[in-house]
Amino acid sequence: MNPTLETIAKRYSCRRYDGTPIEKKDLEAIALAAVQSPSALNQQPWKINVITNKALIEEMDDMGMAMMSQWEDKSTYQRFVDRGGNLFYNTPCMFLVVKEPGKDLDCGIVMENIALAACSLGLGCVICGMAAIPLQSEKGAEFKTRMGMEDGEEFGMAILIGHASKEGTQHPVNMDKIRWIE
Amino acid sequence: MNPTLETIAKRYSCRRYDGTPIEKKDLEAIALAAVQSPSALNQQPWKINVITNKALIEEMDDMGMAMMSQWEDKSTYQRFVDRGGNLFYNTPCMFLVVKEPGKDLDCGIVMENIALAACSLGLGCVICGMAAIPLQSEKGAEFKTRMGMEDGEEFGMAILIGHASKEGTQHPVNMDKIRWIE
Repeated sequence: MNPTLETIAKRYSCRRYDGTPIEKKDLEAIALAAVQSPSALNQQPWKINVITNKALIEEMDDMGMAMMSQWEDKSTYQRFVDRGGNLFYNTPCMFLVVKEPGKDLDCGIVMENIALAACSLGLGCVICGMAAIPLQSEKGAEFKTRMGMEDGEEFGMAILIGHASKEGTQHPVNMDKIRWIE
Repeated sequence: MNPTLETIAKRYSCRRYDGTPIEKKDLEAIALAAVQSPSALNQQPWKINVITNKALIEEMDDMGMAMMSQWEDKSTYQRFVDRGGNLFYNTPCMFLVVKEPGKDLDCGIVMENIALAACSLGLGCVICGMAAIPLQSEKGAEFKTRMGMEDGEEFGMAILIGHASKEGTQHPVNMDKIRWIE
């Protein structure tokens, strides 16, 4: 197994960060990996917000938790309360990818490049759809402005990255997902 | 730059294959990388068809070209004629990923794991949306049956993999796609 295959095998969804900042050179390496993603007809229908602003992350976290606490079904809210009460697990960094409408597949490609780049640098990460919640709140427009989001851009997906305070392992794989047509 | 970042940097869209088969152990390594992909709530809303059946690939190629030749706008057809007249560039292998409706982002994640695994093994690859075309043809149902596709599964995306007959390089990156929110 070569180092790239090892990175793919060891990537797992990290939900505990020690909160320490990520070195700028590592953030730059991950950002470079993101823009090296292939896309349909090389249209690159996305932008990558690298958010290390602690205040913004915390305000989005607080707003997301507040919104979830109002949901009729409390199970999701309770899950995050049980995990420590933070939506973003004390992450020091969020890569929030915005996209043109309908470009979800291209966005998924970017997500995995970011995840594997982070993992290769010894960092933990978790893809985080919950980051969409605070953008739908009453402060959503303000959050988008602080990120520099422009008209025509919509939330694609976010990924939290940081130093894991507890290492984890990947889900078991299911080889039944493979069909061999030989 | 570590080996995973190097793989991400050197991956490019390969459109010329020498047609020689891929070793089974490499196909298995790529298939393993595919099922090691993260997905929302670990639902794994996809299956991976590893197609090395030469007759099936050639029949899909012929049907795709025939369909494109009938399009009112001939520019796409002409582009493939100019490239050698094959939709799939003489590939010995196609990974065709099927998915549940709406699961495009999860499908994109799988695509990049496959692409990077192939690249790390010294193989060329190109993500290929054109593979959807023959599935929409009069022989589409037959092709789907030969792949073992089941009800509720739809075309996600395909990726061609083989030994490059001509090495290539990646598109230039655009760092303007990055916004730093510090």
